Amino acid sequence: MSNASQVQPVLDRIDADLGNSVDRLFALLRIQSISTDPAYAPHCRTAAEHVAADLGNLGFETSVRPTAGHPVVVGKSNGHAGSKAPRVLFYGHYDVQPVDPLDLWKTPPFEPRVETLDGGRKIIVARGACDDKGQAMTFIEACRAFKAVTGRLPLDITMMIEGEEECGSKHLFGFVRDNAAEFKRDLALVCDTGMWDGDTPSITTSLRGLVYEEVRLTCADRDLHSGLFGGAARNPIHVLADVLAAMHDADGAVTIPGFYDGVKELPPEIKADLAGLGLTPEKFLGQVGLKIPAGEKGRLVIEQISTRPTAEVNGIIGGYTGEGAKTVIPGKAMAKVSFRLVGAQDPEKIRAAFRDFVRARLPADCTAEFGNFTSAPAFDVAFDNPALIKARTALAEEWGRKAVTIGAGGSIPIVGDFKTVLGMDTLMVGFALDDDRVHSPNEKFDLKCFHKGIRSWARILAALAAGG
Amino acid sequence: MSNASQVQPVLDRIDADLGNSVDRLFALLRIQSISTDPAYAPHCRTAAEHVAADLGNLGFETSVRPTAGHPVVVGKSNGHAGSKAPRVLFYGHYDVQPVDPLDLWKTPPFEPRVETLDGGRKIIVARGACDDKGQAMTFIEACRAFKAVTGRLPLDITMMIEGEEECGSKHLFGFVRDNAAEFKRDLALVCDTGMWDGDTPSITTSLRGLVYEEVRLTCADRDLHSGLFGGAARNPIHVLADVLAAMHDADGAVTIPGFYDGVKELPPEIKADLAGLGLTPEKFLGQVGLKIPAGEKGRLVIEQISTRPTAEVNGIIGGYTGEGAKTVIPGKAMAKVSFRLVGAQDPEKIRAAFRDFVRARLPADCTAEFGNFTSAPAFDVAFDNPALIKARTALAEEWGRKAVTIGAGGSIPIVGDFKTVLGMDTLMVGFALDDDRVHSPNEKFDLKCFHKGIRSWARILAALAAGG
Repeated sequence: MSNASQVQPVLDRIDADLGNSVDRLFALLRIQSISTDPAYAPHCRTAAEHVAADLGNLGFETSVRPTAGHPVVVGKSNGHAGSKAPRVLFYGHYDVQPVDPLDLWKTPPFEPRVETLDGGRKIIVARGACDDKGQAMTFIEACRAFKAVTGRLPLDITMMIEGEEECGSKHLFGFVRDNAAEFKRDLALVCDTGMWDGDTPSITTSLRGLVYEEVRLTCADRDLHSGLFGGAARNPIHVLADVLAAMHDADGAVTIPGFYDGVKELPPEIKADLAGLGLTPEKFLGQVGLKIPAGEKGRLVIEQISTRPTAEVNGIIGGYTGEGAKTVIPGKAMAKVSFRLVGAQDPEKIRAAFRDFVRARLPADCTAEFGNFTSAPAFDVAFDNPALIKARTALAEEWGRKAVTIGAGGSIPIVGDFKTVLGMDTLMVGFALDDDRVHSPNEKFDLKCFHKGIRSWARILAALAAGG
Repeated sequence: MSNASQVQPVLDRIDADLGNSVDRLFALLRIQSISTDPAYAPHCRTAAEHVAADLGNLGFETSVRPTAGHPVVVGKSNGHAGSKAPRVLFYGHYDVQPVDPLDLWKTPPFEPRVETLDGGRKIIVARGACDDKGQAMTFIEACRAFKAVTGRLPLDITMMIEGEEECGSKHLFGFVRDNAAEFKRDLALVCDTGMWDGDTPSITTSLRGLVYEEVRLTCADRDLHSGLFGGAARNPIHVLADVLAAMHDADGAVTIPGFYDGVKELPPEIKADLAGLGLTPEKFLGQVGLKIPAGEKGRLVIEQISTRPTAEVNGIIGGYTGEGAKTVIPGKAMAKVSFRLVGAQDPEKIRAAFRDFVRARLPADCTAEFGNFTSAPAFDVAFDNPALIKARTALAEEWGRKAVTIGAGGSIPIVGDFKTVLGMDTLMVGFALDDDRVHSPNEKFDLKCFHKGIRSWARILAALAAGG
């Protein structure tokens, strides 16, 4: 297939085969692959073997690879030597969240069904319907349609379907590092994210990084009576409050020297796209009882939560915090402070700058100890990445609406490792909606999202296969 | 006795009778009057009756007055109608602290003994040797000497020796209020404080007041994920840190509007006396591992801890404070804040000003609730109070060194009630030393402090009796 416009037969095949696609998804949904509960380990194994067998049917050379936990399903297409198209790694997971509280499910979680809502909207209901069995199957079904129509997969694809995403992917990091040569491709694809809304496709192009610090201040070598010492003795809560208050200026910007090094402005057209989404402070903050954006002044809320860095105090404690009154000047006080990072911000430089910032504000008889819990750089795909441009076009063709590129405020650690360990970018394209009840009872996936998700991947794969 | 110089026969009698004075103190020390432990209630009763009997021997009309707790011993001298001398109320307590850990006592706590230290210094060792049996007996023995030499007590004295000081004096406040007419005299005397050092007598002329507040901030109506909301959602720890940091300026002064209303400067001669004590930051703060005074710049340390008001954060908590990392933006944060007051600072005005100060700094989507735990005005005796001037002179004559007037940083609630309920000032004169191990094993009272304490009271009583 040399041109994206030649995808029509594949799309037609997807439409005609939708009922079978749903049946195949149902077969996977029936497997109780709850990864966090050791009692379900045999079910996880069954799910892995089920996926491997299915991929084998599509022409993948498959294996169920052991880890110290649940196995990873690996599939490799063959026969694309010499192609100009990028070689891709698709990542998904076959494991699901636990189902409790079971009594809140309207029908059993592992007995998938299609329900028609008022107004005719159809939804697939089951644990994993969306996260991630349904989403991963959109990609696999797109591959199946290509195979049926053209006799082969559209480009060089490596599949990595793991079984521990819902319990922290704890063995996947080592697996990727130990087999780096095998999984280092030109581009990673992930289908585990959401759409902006039911009509607006989106690609997650950035994830914020994180630095997490604990700072413990000590002033006096014991707790003091505020009657005897108050007025002369240094209070570490005061010192800590001064430090934390100084961390932001009146406009909400972080004041730590060098903090914004490596932070870039969004291209104007991307910023205009984000503004066009109309995410008002009332809409976003109103859902949790707030109304005034607290971050950097002059920024869209969607920028504040996704493409701008932050400094946040996640916890603080010192002195007497029980009922009633105690007139103590504590010897110690502690805060947990974390930074969400974007762009090229260097986690270790930020950490060092924060520590310097604290130390510069310490009186000479007050000491600080630091604890370091996490450090991960931000991840982002360049807006002019050719694969990203193709995927945006493909999604726009499918949905009849411009695809937005959004940043996720939190981290997806394995995507960071794809970048840092394997040196490749990841396109995160997903079809989940905000009301999918992921991780909750009565999880669902819109049939429309499943169907158009398959068609979206077909268009993206065709576009990538076209090379250039 | 019409002149303070005529006290010499009384002093001579005190010197000659010292051995008997010690024996009488020992008899009181042998009674296990631990007030906080109900098992010792009969011993408390025995102590009260013992003290009442002893006062009866001195010519007091005595009674053991019931309360809902341990009784109060009341004694009234008679026969001073028409005297120009002030009528005084002496307050002390016959109860003591528990003795545990018992195994740290070198000898049993209720078997008093005199020990001679290297260098010849003699100490009385027992629970209550100083606090307050030993100190109260300095006053009683002075009375006894007057009675022996002159046949009568030197002036109109009402004794109030309670039995619940070590467990919060909880029934004394009501007792004083209910019997206000009986206990309202011209001046109260208390012997439960310390000397500046072993050679320098001192009078405690002020106690700081206290306002204790709790402030609870709420921003979002739940805890938020800092990845999803960080950058837009208000963090109540940040708001609280801003408020607390703003409470002091760079020179350590409290910035709450009107905070210093009613605070006076010390008279220059009093300040010079305090400066002469040479309490350096190194000496005072060094004992707890600090070295730099944290309070108002340009003040003596001794001013900072006694005659200047403070604002202190006694506790703070918010967000995640356990082990490790949690990326939360909490919905709530709380701090406990107290103010030590001096002079004429109005506790309720300070409380209102603090609340206004907090509210003025709240974003519109953040709310504050307040809890009120304590409110007590400061207490002080005017430096030109005639009784104070006489007591200073008397102490200087006894110790051969100027008596310093000092402020106590904390509160002694009953002294506040003597002022607010009974409308009288209190002179707090005591002979405890910093190394007396009050409340700890091996409590002691220097025999010299006991002896010269008795002589000091004899001189003070003579001076007060001289009238004018």
